Amino acid sequence: MSKGLFITVEGGEGAGKTTTLDRLEEELVGRGYDVLRTREPGGIRIAEQIREVLLNTAHTEMDGRTEALLYAAARRQHLVEKVLPAIEAGQVVLCDRFIDSSLAYQGYARGIGVDAIQSINDFAIDGCMPQLTLFFDVDPNIGLQRIAANQERENNRLDQEKKSFHDRVRRGYELLLEQYPDRIKKINANEDVETVYRMALAEVETLLKE
Amino acid sequence: MSKGLFITVEGGEGAGKTTTLDRLEEELVGRGYDVLRTREPGGIRIAEQIREVLLNTAHTEMDGRTEALLYAAARRQHLVEKVLPAIEAGQVVLCDRFIDSSLAYQGYARGIGVDAIQSINDFAIDGCMPQLTLFFDVDPNIGLQRIAANQERENNRLDQEKKSFHDRVRRGYELLLEQYPDRIKKINANEDVETVYRMALAEVETLLKE
Repeated sequence: MSKGLFITVEGGEGAGKTTTLDRLEEELVGRGYDVLRTREPGGIRIAEQIREVLLNTAHTEMDGRTEALLYAAARRQHLVEKVLPAIEAGQVVLCDRFIDSSLAYQGYARGIGVDAIQSINDFAIDGCMPQLTLFFDVDPNIGLQRIAANQERENNRLDQEKKSFHDRVRRGYELLLEQYPDRIKKINANEDVETVYRMALAEVETLLKE
Repeated sequence: MSKGLFITVEGGEGAGKTTTLDRLEEELVGRGYDVLRTREPGGIRIAEQIREVLLNTAHTEMDGRTEALLYAAARRQHLVEKVLPAIEAGQVVLCDRFIDSSLAYQGYARGIGVDAIQSINDFAIDGCMPQLTLFFDVDPNIGLQRIAANQERENNRLDQEKKSFHDRVRRGYELLLEQYPDRIKKINANEDVETVYRMALAEVETLLKE
């Protein structure tokens, strides 16, 4: 039995990751692939407990580096208990967010530093990088409007601070794309759902043929 | 007001760290120093919750790297909330165990690798290293016998697996001592309580005179 594949999906809010992953999963299963769809903490007991500490943020006192180490810890445990066994068993793993989220959000947008966040995540991942990462690149104006529409908010005014943060996240992802052009493939997520899905599927098909 | 000092105490089990710290604290307070005596997680809410995840080890499934990241996270929060403000306020901080414990136990004795453990702890500490580290070096046979006597165990048979682990921890500390001879000072903790205390006090006095 051949080894499985590890595919991650990245991008800002409202980029259509979930919708596209739903369709990708369905398509791959239909073609006979054994698919594991997951995201951190993914029901892994220890990772869930770590996430509780992270989200129990009445914790306004939590330091940014503490937070980054906790995300890396949850990532490690999810990887060891869920992703690695699936890859070993020959499954195609579709994971919603992975290391690049930490690099773009914490390393770049929050200003801790991409190299610093890389170092603790290298420790967490210990060499298990995805073969393919789909970066859903969406204009934050469009992404945030989609979220607002989705939640049927009466007021979809963009919070300007939020907007500038999402601009930085996007720039962080763009820098990663420049650094890892073989692994990371950009999907123009400003397009409609159908177009986005077709572009994502094309990248996955390219990987499956390798 | 001048900045404070950061002193850590390290060593294996039964090395007499607590007894010596009690006396050092009393002595320094008697001489008019403002002393903060602490250890991780040190009553820091987030650090205590992280420690709960670590110790809730019905968790036999916890990966060694997850554990190391959690220790580093608890260290970071304790440092930011407790140690750094005390140093800023001019206090003498006496901390029972710090980065060298992770390097000796997880990096060396458990085999994750000293450089790997160093990298995540460098991230956690972000340049705040102690000025002085007292390494209480005790023969594991003596240390474990002291513990057994202390606990009034009827059977003080040494567990041989435990013994070889403590030998590795000791070797890990010795390597750190070779690497950081200016910061780490070895105290022969095989000696009696009074002698150990006097040696430790002498090192602290040398630092205070600088």
